[in-house]
Amino acid sequence: YKINTAFYEAMGIKGWEALEQTVNYIPATHFKIADAKRGDIGNTSAQYAKTFFEAYKFDAVTVAPYMGEDSIRPFLEYDDKWTIVLALTSNKGSADFEQLKMSTASGRQQFLFEKVMQKVSEWGTPDNLMFVVGATKTEQLEDIRKTFPRHFFLVPGVGAQGGSLKEVSKAALTSDGGILVNASRSIIYASSNESFAADARRVAKEYIDEMKKYLKT
Amino acid sequence: YKINTAFYEAMGIKGWEALEQTVNYIPATHFKIADAKRGDIGNTSAQYAKTFFEAYKFDAVTVAPYMGEDSIRPFLEYDDKWTIVLALTSNKGSADFEQLKMSTASGRQQFLFEKVMQKVSEWGTPDNLMFVVGATKTEQLEDIRKTFPRHFFLVPGVGAQGGSLKEVSKAALTSDGGILVNASRSIIYASSNESFAADARRVAKEYIDEMKKYLKT
Repeated sequence: YKINTAFYEAMGIKGWEALEQTVNYIPATHFKIADAKRGDIGNTSAQYAKTFFEAYKFDAVTVAPYMGEDSIRPFLEYDDKWTIVLALTSNKGSADFEQLKMSTASGRQQFLFEKVMQKVSEWGTPDNLMFVVGATKTEQLEDIRKTFPRHFFLVPGVGAQGGSLKEVSKAALTSDGGILVNASRSIIYASSNESFAADARRVAKEYIDEMKKYLKT
Repeated sequence: YKINTAFYEAMGIKGWEALEQTVNYIPATHFKIADAKRGDIGNTSAQYAKTFFEAYKFDAVTVAPYMGEDSIRPFLEYDDKWTIVLALTSNKGSADFEQLKMSTASGRQQFLFEKVMQKVSEWGTPDNLMFVVGATKTEQLEDIRKTFPRHFFLVPGVGAQGGSLKEVSKAALTSDGGILVNASRSIIYASSNESFAADARRVAKEYIDEMKKYLKT
């Protein structure tokens, strides 16, 4: 489960109570991601890591890379937890900075998000570090997979944002899986009437069945 | 007051209750910044804006720019509120990405943080947008002020992080002021014994008296 903390936070204290209850509802067997996009100077990032890994028992948290190494390290210091760093996100704004081109020392052109992935991958391992790579970026996903064959990618943007599960799987699946595909709005807004639970279940099951096909081949 | 939300969040629900109480303690005459470093895709950033501008009545919130325009716009849409975007931060990790050099269309070399400031300044105005420029970067602060003569800069890093109030003022003060200098740890850790309140007051007053001198000249 990838829980977007903003929608809880916006309700104030009631929201944080609901967040705690939501996390407790999810069985321990299921992987729980706090989609919180945190990141600050070192001593403050340590507090954010404590928030999501200790106070709320998430397995993973999403982290923004802009402030660099000391803003990311505190998350990576937890055993058996995952740090998921924003690389190439699924939104339109990813063109503004993430996809800026810059020259490397060797004179090659490189996108900012590639530079981010390259540096950040030196701070963690494929066993405690994932990257966010949006499902709407399939044309680049294949190249990214070639450069980072062993890291898990968290892939949001399937469904409401228009990403295709098939295209994503084709571009980035590895023999171990290697992708964690997320669909949120297409499931939680499956319907708004009394059959909501059944409708949401049906849409989720469709994704699962489709994904199973790609995992087999 | 610049309130670092991470230290409240790490305490769970109790922390959010304390945050609400802290905000309510501060008189309405005083400017209140949520130092929360939020930023996500558009619909989610809108929830974060709601959190800090509506649920908690802050005047300003710090925002991370990595995800681009739609991650920042929702904050700028509030009247009489300030969006404070990370540009060049005071921490060591600012060298990792913020200070990466890239070529512009005209062939000139530009730092990522300059590119961020340039783009983001097109989305807001000097009346609803500030930039974080760390006090530890005084050698660059003067150039940044020349490029952005009208924007307020939030300048953290004076005190515990080693920034000099004098140097910062020399580099970035304008005739209207134009800088909001923040010292946190040097004040809240002024002492740890019973005289804490008096000690913190004394250190804060020293900063105020020093700043008054620079504002006069």
